[in-house]
Amino acid sequence: MVSAHNTAGDAPRPNVASVRYELLTLGDELLLGLTANGHLTFIGAQLGRHGALLQRNVTITDEADAIAAQFRESWARADVVITTGGLGPTCDDRTREVVAEVLGQKLVFDPAIERAIEERFARFGRKMTANNLKQAYVFERGEVLPNANGTAPGLWAEQDGKVLVMLPGPPNELQPMFIDQVVPRLAARGLLRQKEAYVQLRTAGVGESALETKLQPIFDRHGASLSVAFCAHQGAVDCRVSSPNGGLTESALEQVASECAQLLGDDFVCYGHDSLARVCAELLRKQEKRLSVVETATGGLLANAFTEVCGACKFFAGGVVCCTNDAKMLLLDVPECLLLQHGAVSEEAAVAMATGAAETLGADYALAVTGFAGAAATGQTGNPVGTMYIGLFSPAGVWAKKLSYPGPRSTVKVRAVNAALDWLRRELLRAEQGGVTTQRRSNVMR
Amino acid sequence: MVSAHNTAGDAPRPNVASVRYELLTLGDELLLGLTANGHLTFIGAQLGRHGALLQRNVTITDEADAIAAQFRESWARADVVITTGGLGPTCDDRTREVVAEVLGQKLVFDPAIERAIEERFARFGRKMTANNLKQAYVFERGEVLPNANGTAPGLWAEQDGKVLVMLPGPPNELQPMFIDQVVPRLAARGLLRQKEAYVQLRTAGVGESALETKLQPIFDRHGASLSVAFCAHQGAVDCRVSSPNGGLTESALEQVASECAQLLGDDFVCYGHDSLARVCAELLRKQEKRLSVVETATGGLLANAFTEVCGACKFFAGGVVCCTNDAKMLLLDVPECLLLQHGAVSEEAAVAMATGAAETLGADYALAVTGFAGAAATGQTGNPVGTMYIGLFSPAGVWAKKLSYPGPRSTVKVRAVNAALDWLRRELLRAEQGGVTTQRRSNVMR
Repeated sequence: MVSAHNTAGDAPRPNVASVRYELLTLGDELLLGLTANGHLTFIGAQLGRHGALLQRNVTITDEADAIAAQFRESWARADVVITTGGLGPTCDDRTREVVAEVLGQKLVFDPAIERAIEERFARFGRKMTANNLKQAYVFERGEVLPNANGTAPGLWAEQDGKVLVMLPGPPNELQPMFIDQVVPRLAARGLLRQKEAYVQLRTAGVGESALETKLQPIFDRHGASLSVAFCAHQGAVDCRVSSPNGGLTESALEQVASECAQLLGDDFVCYGHDSLARVCAELLRKQEKRLSVVETATGGLLANAFTEVCGACKFFAGGVVCCTNDAKMLLLDVPECLLLQHGAVSEEAAVAMATGAAETLGADYALAVTGFAGAAATGQTGNPVGTMYIGLFSPAGVWAKKLSYPGPRSTVKVRAVNAALDWLRRELLRAEQGGVTTQRRSNVMR
Repeated sequence: MVSAHNTAGDAPRPNVASVRYELLTLGDELLLGLTANGHLTFIGAQLGRHGALLQRNVTITDEADAIAAQFRESWARADVVITTGGLGPTCDDRTREVVAEVLGQKLVFDPAIERAIEERFARFGRKMTANNLKQAYVFERGEVLPNANGTAPGLWAEQDGKVLVMLPGPPNELQPMFIDQVVPRLAARGLLRQKEAYVQLRTAGVGESALETKLQPIFDRHGASLSVAFCAHQGAVDCRVSSPNGGLTESALEQVASECAQLLGDDFVCYGHDSLARVCAELLRKQEKRLSVVETATGGLLANAFTEVCGACKFFAGGVVCCTNDAKMLLLDVPECLLLQHGAVSEEAAVAMATGAAETLGADYALAVTGFAGAAATGQTGNPVGTMYIGLFSPAGVWAKKLSYPGPRSTVKVRAVNAALDWLRRELLRAEQGGVTTQRRSNVMR
């Protein structure tokens, strides 16, 4: 059996960090780009938050030969191998059989699983088809990981001093199984710990290279023990500091991060993984203010960013999605003459929409986004695709600004949402500090 | 140089399908689950739509040794290797240097790239920092792939009878580079073709195992030449038929797909890759009807599904996102007494919300979603988390139905959106066929 120390919070970092995890994600649909590889994101994050770094993720086709060759290679190299997919009922589900053969394990029929599948079908008023029975075969020397949300159970085996975890492909089945069953088992064997392997700072409004240049003097003081990594999102950059060789203690890493945060001022968003919307939500809650939104080109994504935050009804007064002038007039009392004179994609429209959203819904703050996100939406006003106007209504006034983004529709949408969130965040920070806004006041006010 | 036949639409399938593509996605942020591996989804789909199947995707850490070992292995095995990430300006960007060393290529400084980076910074009113200069080094024997949306250019090299493509990590930079520069170059060398490698059917409302059981008799008639794969999304299942050994012609595959579609009736959504929202949008356009939506628990995702469709303003009258009773009353005239009597998460509320959305926005159809998607939202009415009510207003009447989903908040949201879209799709199909709805009429009508 592989073993790091049994962790109770005080275990040394390098032991868990040196456990070699590999993830095999199976399925032609991943390689054909028909479904996103969310398993890498989810399992990678789960391991990272428990002090381990996934070493490798390999995605291969559903062919038996390819699965066998890759599994053999990963099993030889890793301490823990996790597979996803290929445990289901249909003809292209081959992982269980192939892996059993490589490990020299016999598959045995488990009548308890057959009953569970039958009961599941009965509960949904459907009849179990015969192809479901292959899901009832399990390793002779291993354990079953029950699946509360689907038919295919997971499998757990320890062999050759290594751990094998096999999980079904659908994310709503895999994710609770991983959290409730796999993480506790790995932790019990000392292969995971309680803390993250790094300290992360989220920033907004500063580019990746400028961020590194600004922070470099702080990093230089800590030499080779400090490892730094950057990750640019759309309009936001994360910076992670870690010490893979264990040369810096956790509190030393926290000190480095705190120096960085101080230097960055308002460009520092938060430590950890909170979204911009969650940071705004916290500020709104603290200040007991309510927000509403209205959006055209971002199509609901701005509202969704806030409703992803638990208990959104406490601070989120509501949102409106409108791509027609009629909807703006009907729902928010935006004057038709203004939309006709200046166009629906204009600073004036953004100001009027933000004001309408705040007044109609009785909110203290309101964000408006209007623009051309995609190829079909060309403006009569000569605004090119990628032009977005953001409006911000606050107790201190109402403003709009023009932004311009390159790239495909989905990129433009996400960048506009992030820009709007970041503007609100800075305005809420200023209000908290009792400061005066430095934003340019729009010349169009209602 | 690798070469399949030069394709002008008539090239035989097996040549392109047998070209071995491998994708190396670099970056600790992928392995730590901090950012989704969208490159696999995007590049896999691009290759698939041009007749090639990506054979393998490997994600590894930013360490130089790991990159070198993996690149060496992939280069030995594949015909075309594509790398993403690690070309940027910061200290953890090491791909260019490591790959050059493995290939025995010298890196040379390209002053044209330096100028392009400087101009880009100037355009955004920022000063170029010195760390950006490493992005101006290119292969001695290779080509530069200009990057219109970022500082790091891509690199192209042909060596050892193989093709190497190196692209920067940010999706808004990589994606247009791949479409505009990489696909045409690969096609010119006969490594891609014009058509997909498979025929896909999208279905809704039938589970994966039931779908296979239903279609199996059709598949059985075509024997070993036919390859079938299934992919379950949240509430929808895709089925792909292909013939990797070339035993079935394209028209034979289309014939198989057509037989499947006919057998499935209304459970068949479309061929190819259209979203449920796009299919609904086409039906609305054809029938010259307009739709509005109102949502609580799905938070804007339902509206966003429609605004993703080009030219949404033609059929989408608008959307409302409200988590409070106030917002429902203010924006949609939903009667307070109804919400107080039955609760905001109820069949009655869903019916009233759909009706309010249709009437306020002058739409022919309206969808409403109300429910408890996440842990914080527990109902006073005793509805457990995952309970969702969907309301549908149509020219033929207004109904609501109760659904219940397991899993985390994001899963519940997507499933509810898909269920609402599928209900609308079936209702639009019935209207098109002039048929009478078979849905249970709600006992609560306005």
